[in-house]
Parts: sequence; C-alpha cells; structure tokens
Amino acid sequence: MSAGWFRRRFLPGEPLPAPRPPGPRASPVPYRRPRFLRGSSSSPGAADASRRPDSRPVRSPARGRTLPWNAGYAEIINAEKSEFNEDQAACGKLCIRRCEFGAEEEWLTLCPEEFLTGHYWALFDGHGGPAAAILAANTLHSCLRRQLEAVVEGLVATQPPMHLNGRCICPSDPQFVEEKGIRAEDLVIGALESAFQECDEVIGRELEASGQMGGCTALVAVSLQGKLYMANAGDSRAILVRRDEIRPLSFEFTPETERQRIQQLAFVYPELLAGEFTRLEFPRRLKGDDLGQKVLFRDHHMSGWSYKRVEKSDLKYPLIHGQGRQARLLGTLAVSRGLGDHQLRVLDTNIQLKPFLLSVPQVTVLDVDQLELQEDDVVVMATDGLWDVLSNEQVAWLVRSFLPGNQEDPHRFSKLAQMLIHSTQGKEDSLTEEGQVSYDDVSVFVIPLHSQGQESSGH
Amino acid sequence: MSAGWFRRRFLPGEPLPAPRPPGPRASPVPYRRPRFLRGSSSSPGAADASRRPDSRPVRSPARGRTLPWNAGYAEIINAEKSEFNEDQAACGKLCIRRCEFGAEEEWLTLCPEEFLTGHYWALFDGHGGPAAAILAANTLHSCLRRQLEAVVEGLVATQPPMHLNGRCICPSDPQFVEEKGIRAEDLVIGALESAFQECDEVIGRELEASGQMGGCTALVAVSLQGKLYMANAGDSRAILVRRDEIRPLSFEFTPETERQRIQQLAFVYPELLAGEFTRLEFPRRLKGDDLGQKVLFRDHHMSGWSYKRVEKSDLKYPLIHGQGRQARLLGTLAVSRGLGDHQLRVLDTNIQLKPFLLSVPQVTVLDVDQLELQEDDVVVMATDGLWDVLSNEQVAWLVRSFLPGNQEDPHRFSKLAQMLIHSTQGKEDSLTEEGQVSYDDVSVFVIPLHSQGQESSGH
Repeated sequence: MSAGWFRRRFLPGEPLPAPRPPGPRASPVPYRRPRFLRGSSSSPGAADASRRPDSRPVRSPARGRTLPWNAGYAEIINAEKSEFNEDQAACGKLCIRRCEFGAEEEWLTLCPEEFLTGHYWALFDGHGGPAAAILAANTLHSCLRRQLEAVVEGLVATQPPMHLNGRCICPSDPQFVEEKGIRAEDLVIGALESAFQECDEVIGRELEASGQMGGCTALVAVSLQGKLYMANAGDSRAILVRRDEIRPLSFEFTPETERQRIQQLAFVYPELLAGEFTRLEFPRRLKGDDLGQKVLFRDHHMSGWSYKRVEKSDLKYPLIHGQGRQARLLGTLAVSRGLGDHQLRVLDTNIQLKPFLLSVPQVTVLDVDQLELQEDDVVVMATDGLWDVLSNEQVAWLVRSFLPGNQEDPHRFSKLAQMLIHSTQGKEDSLTEEGQVSYDDVSVFVIPLHSQGQESSGH
Repeated sequence: MSAGWFRRRFLPGEPLPAPRPPGPRASPVPYRRPRFLRGSSSSPGAADASRRPDSRPVRSPARGRTLPWNAGYAEIINAEKSEFNEDQAACGKLCIRRCEFGAEEEWLTLCPEEFLTGHYWALFDGHGGPAAAILAANTLHSCLRRQLEAVVEGLVATQPPMHLNGRCICPSDPQFVEEKGIRAEDLVIGALESAFQECDEVIGRELEASGQMGGCTALVAVSLQGKLYMANAGDSRAILVRRDEIRPLSFEFTPETERQRIQQLAFVYPELLAGEFTRLEFPRRLKGDDLGQKVLFRDHHMSGWSYKRVEKSDLKYPLIHGQGRQARLLGTLAVSRGLGDHQLRVLDTNIQLKPFLLSVPQVTVLDVDQLELQEDDVVVMATDGLWDVLSNEQVAWLVRSFLPGNQEDPHRFSKLAQMLIHSTQGKEDSLTEEGQVSYDDVSVFVIPLHSQGQESSGH
C-alpha cells in the first residue's frame, strides 16, 4: 500500500544523508521549556520558537532515508523532514514473524521470514523539543512488532484461543471466548495499547539517561488483515474521506476533552496539586472580588454546570484552565495523552505533569474489507496544525476536488498532502475562514485505501 | 403532558387505598440479600423471589394514588403498583419557584406560586428489597426541585450568568461564559446530577436509621423549557420512537459497560478488594490447571485483549465476572450505578460494594422543540425486564403497529405500555425470539411528545 506524506517546510533537492543511529543521544537537543507556559511570566519567544512563522527548521532533512527496522524487516519513509523538528513521522512495512512455544517454555523463533505483513504510518508532534518525537519515530514500530509477534498465533486463529499455546485446559474455553466476543482485532488493539506503553517507558529511560526532556503526541495507523487500526494519544487527527462520507477515525485528547478523568485523579490524589491548584473548573480564573459570590463551576462528577459560593481555595490557579485550543493542564500542557514528559514539571514548582498524562491510545478499527472501495477513498492523518485551520469538511472538499482530476499521476497522494499543507499557509484559494494561517508545524499522511499495486510509494 | 404507564402485575379493580406516608419506616421490609449472589453457595430462592414467575406481589397496590409532593406542588401518579415491589415509579408536574438573593445574602422566596413548570417521570428498579426504590420514588423529585430552584435565575436568563445574583464583577464575564459554551441546559444537567447525589445521601441516612438495606437503579425524564432530559443511573433504558427513527436516550451502566472505571478504582485502591478478588478480567474464572499458562486477559487501561502468564493471584475471584446480563460486580451486583447500597457487602466478607458504585447519572438532552413532531412520536422508558426480551427495534415495531390504529382512544398510551408488558410475558404474538419470557419485574412509561391537551393522564 502506498501513501502520500508531506510536511510543511519542504526543502526540495537536498542530498540523501547517511542513515543515523536512532535516539536523542545521536542528535542532542537542548531542553526547551514546553511550548505552553503558565501565566504572563512565561517567555513565549523561547518556548514557541519552532512554531512561529519566522523560525526556520534546522536544515538537515532526510529525504526518503531508509532506516534499519529491527534487522531490516521494514523501512521508514521519512521524506522531506528535518531531523530536529518537533514533528516527526515514520512509515513502512510491518513484518511479523511467527514464533512457537518451545520445549522449555520459551519463545523460539521458528521462521525468521515474515509471516504476517502489515503497514504502519505514524505522526509524532513533539513539545519541549523534538527528543521524544524522534525517539518515538525510531522506537514505536519495534515495540508494536514485538507485541504483535507475542500474540500472532491468536491473530491467525479463527478466534483467539483462551490459552496461547492452543492447549485447551478446559473444554468450555472456546465457548467462553465466544461469549465474551473476543476477536483477533482485540489482540491488535491490545498490542497497540501495550506498544504505546512500552515505548513510553523506553522514552522515559532514554531521556533520563541522556539528560533530555520533552514529550510528543502519537497518531498511528496500522493496516493488517484487511483492517485499518487507528491508535491516537494526543491532539492529532485522522479522518476517512470517501465520495459520500466523512468519518472521524480518532478523537482528540486534550485537558478539555479529558476534564473529568483529570479532575477525578486530583480528587483521589489531592497531593498531586501541592496546594497550588484548584481541582474545580470555572468559566474564568476567579479573583478576590469573587469571594463569597455564587459562581458557575464544574467538578469531576459533573457534565453539567452548577453554582457554588466562592471560598478562598477557589482562587487558586485551576487544574485545567482556558477553553478550546487554549485549554491548559496545570497551566502548562495543551494535550492530555502522549509519550514522554516524565520529567516535566510546572514552571518553578515540583508539581509533576506525568501522573495526569496517559500514554495509552484510543484505538478505532476500520473494516476496509467491508467497504465498497472507490479509487479515491483515502484516510487523511495530520497533526493539529492542519485541523486548527481546516475543518474535516474543508479537508474532504480539497480531497474530492484534487484526486479525480489527477488519476494518472503516480504522485497524486503526495501532491494532495502537499496541497493540504499549503492550504494552511494561505497558499491556496481562501479556503480557511478569514484567511486563517497555521503557524504550527503541520504533517500530513494521505493513505489511499484502494488496492493499487502499480503505485509507487509516496515521498 | 400525559403519559401512559404500566407495570406487569396488573391487578384490576382493586380499591384505592388511603395515601401512606412515604419512606421505608412506614413500610418495613425485611432485608433480603441482593438478587445476585456470588458462587454456588448463594440461595437464589430467597434472593430472587420477587423475580421468579411463581412469586406473587404483595397485594396492596395503590391505584392512581396522589401523594403530596412537597407542599402539594405536584402529584405522583403511581398506578397499579404494589407498594412493596422492587420496581417503583413516580411522575407528576415539577413546579419550580422563583427565589431572589435577599438583602442579607440569603435566599428568600419571593413568590410561592410556580414560576417554571416541568414534568417528571421516574422508574426505580430495586434490589435487596424495595426500600431504596420506595425512598427514591418519594424523594428524588423533591431533591430535583430544590436543585432547580437554586439555579432558576440562570435557567430563565439568555445565558447562565457567571454570578448567580447577576452582579457582574468582571466586565468580561459574559464573554467567558460564552466561550465555554455554557447554556441553560447545562444547569438542568447539573441539577439532575446533584439531585441524584443528594437523594443517594438521603437514602443512605434513612436506611441506616431504620436498619434497612437495599439499592435501586434510577431512570428519570424531565420535560422543561421545550427539552426532554433523560438521566440514567443503572440498567433501565429509554428510547425515542418516531415514524422513521429509533434513538437511544440512555445508556446502561453495568459492571461490563463500566469495566474500565471499576478496574481503575481497584488499581488505585487495591485495599478495596481485601486480597480476595483479582482486578483482571479473564474469559472465564481461572483454575489451578491454568497456572503458568498464557491466557487472555484485560486490565483497566485496555480496550483490547492480550495474553499473560497465569500467577497464583490470578486464580482469585474476578472483580467483574460473567458476560452480558450475567456480569457481576464483586460476584454480587448486576448494575454499577444507582442509589442506595450503602451497607451492601460481599457475602460473608467485609468488602463493600458502594465505593465501586456511582450515584451520578448520565444525562442526555432531546431538543423536542427542534423536532418536527408527529402525533405518534413517543419516548419509551422501561426497566431492564422489558429490554431483556425485546430489542429497541421490536419495541418500535410494537409502537408503530399499535398507535396509528388507536388515535381516538384517550388511553392509548397506557394501553400501549400494557401491551409492551404483555409482550414480555408471551401474551402477544411471538415477537420475542424463541418465545422469550421475562421473569423480572417490568415497568414501562410511554410518553407522547406531541402536545395534546385533550389527553387525560395515563394510569
């Protein structure tokens, strides 16, 4: 399966650099404070440098570089990318080997050749520097391959067996699995969830060992056995665009969308706020004048709003503050799921962000084999920079406008990705309201779903 | 607005008894163990008595009795009900008075007459005896009225003000409320959430004072200002049935649907399991034979499944066990939200159920004013007994078959409710697969949405 991939700061004609060993040790980046800092004392200049229009990416992009993917079973296409940018991407074949339970209760590799083949696309949007995103781009696919290989016997069975070695202890086991409705796709979902967590641990260890910091969001698509799995931890987004349908394949995880989970944790462990924050949500930050008044508020158990009389403790900075794209967790972070951030603390305090962050993704499944696919059916994956200025409908309109007229172009998916990026920069006809322009990094994958062996891989 | 209400054990022609004071003190019921007991040592005879076909309701039904609703502002229509049955219901007008912030920062009643009028329907499905359900039927509407009266100024404003007294401390306040998108309906949702919690506390105190036990689910519909609010805590269900549409208005809360929340709590507070249960989910209960095997499992952070090697602690009884309607929390309870159960413990242990139960409902909002209503558009609310044997589609089919031919009958909604009940008893043509019959209590409200002043109240 081929895919079009594009990143904003396109630098054509650069030479192909030699492959580099992965990890932040190979590309040391000084720690910069997370991009979203609390209060007016922050220095947005330093924090937001990579996001401002006048900043320039480090000019060492890798164009179509091929990295070893755990003993060469796959390749990463990472075209047109600066190695030091906070946006990172990876894609390639996912080759899953078959193993068997050996005589000594150990896993032995039976055939080193591929047994099950999938495809993998991943977008990582870093903050506090690119270190975590680079590590994730170099690591997550290996974690995922390992997790899938650990359950591959269940993947190829009609139904995952209760016991992995197939030895049935209890005659009613198949019945129980059936009653629970456990399917092979549940093992892939479980593998994705475990892989994200394993990768998060790897990033934590690597960053600590190298004295670096930072975190990243992760949006991962896996095509396997006729299904497309979309795993999301953060605020990137994927949608399916067909002739008559736009279907969201992921949901954003921000302090706003995960308010109740985050407030609940602070309710259970108030010590996580160190007496400096209030768990409650108010429409705006309260002031001394509000004391004794009855004001709108929400607590962890509430979807609706109510009124409470303001006490002194309500004047503290809110655990989640701001609305929409401006909502911040502990005044610091705009996302509530992702990888890394193990050392991240609220500015000038010892209050940790990590306990409030989840590395586990939400996984949706698209049964591609069940769709009556058209030539121009695609999945669009992009970091928040795109969705900040283009709606799902606008992206779908661009897809539907572009593809039918370019069916002969083998690079049309890459060009579509490029065109989507340009639309966020005001380079296309004023699609975005009031000529909105994205100053954030933007990365886009366009994945065609229709089988097309004759297509070459995108950029 | 009128509604048809019906309960299964219909006893026609009984005399109307005198109104009775509410509360379990007036109707002492010996505590019976919750209907779902753990393991084979339970005594289903005693526990399930009220659910078995050979059991008979206590024969003291109140037919159309009118109870005082906090100083006579509304009435409860509780027709055809046994006072001692585990299913209880209430409905009536909800009259909300207007109050004003007095000179001394106290709430003063300005006009005792109704200011805002709504309608209220509630179904309570008890377990461990009817005490909690009776208390809820007699209490929850008062809690809700109180909560709504506390925010009524916000309900009638264009937008709920940041400060309840309307004094705007900060000139930008309305802007913040607007940015947060806070609407009057959020105050009703907040009031429903608070009312459920307040009612739960009342039930806890009342049951403790009277030495009784038990709990109940609660499904509450409130019609107010052109919207229908559906608040659900438990496994009852409400659906909207229109000519071309079936829309779920509630979602069931069971150990299965709330698995991750419940496992998460046990992860945070392992002491709640007292070393007797395992947090992990397996397809079936593990046995000694499984030790050392790799078996399917799920933990709190997982939507998918994975394999783990079985350790001794995995052989404990699972926190949530069984599937579908048979899933049990701590081997004891089939629902994960509701009111009461403050004293409920796992059989022969000191392990409490209450920490795992939520009293807060999920609230959905139906914007009735925005629907182009047809004469036969109805909302069907029913306890689990109905939905165990009839699907949403089957209920909708019955509604659409019955109503159009009975448009002149002023009691057609009551008759429809009655017919739905009969369908669960095999009295109608074999609608349910393989002639399924419900042995559970069944209670049904049919609420017509079309304005029809000429209709009399249902039973």
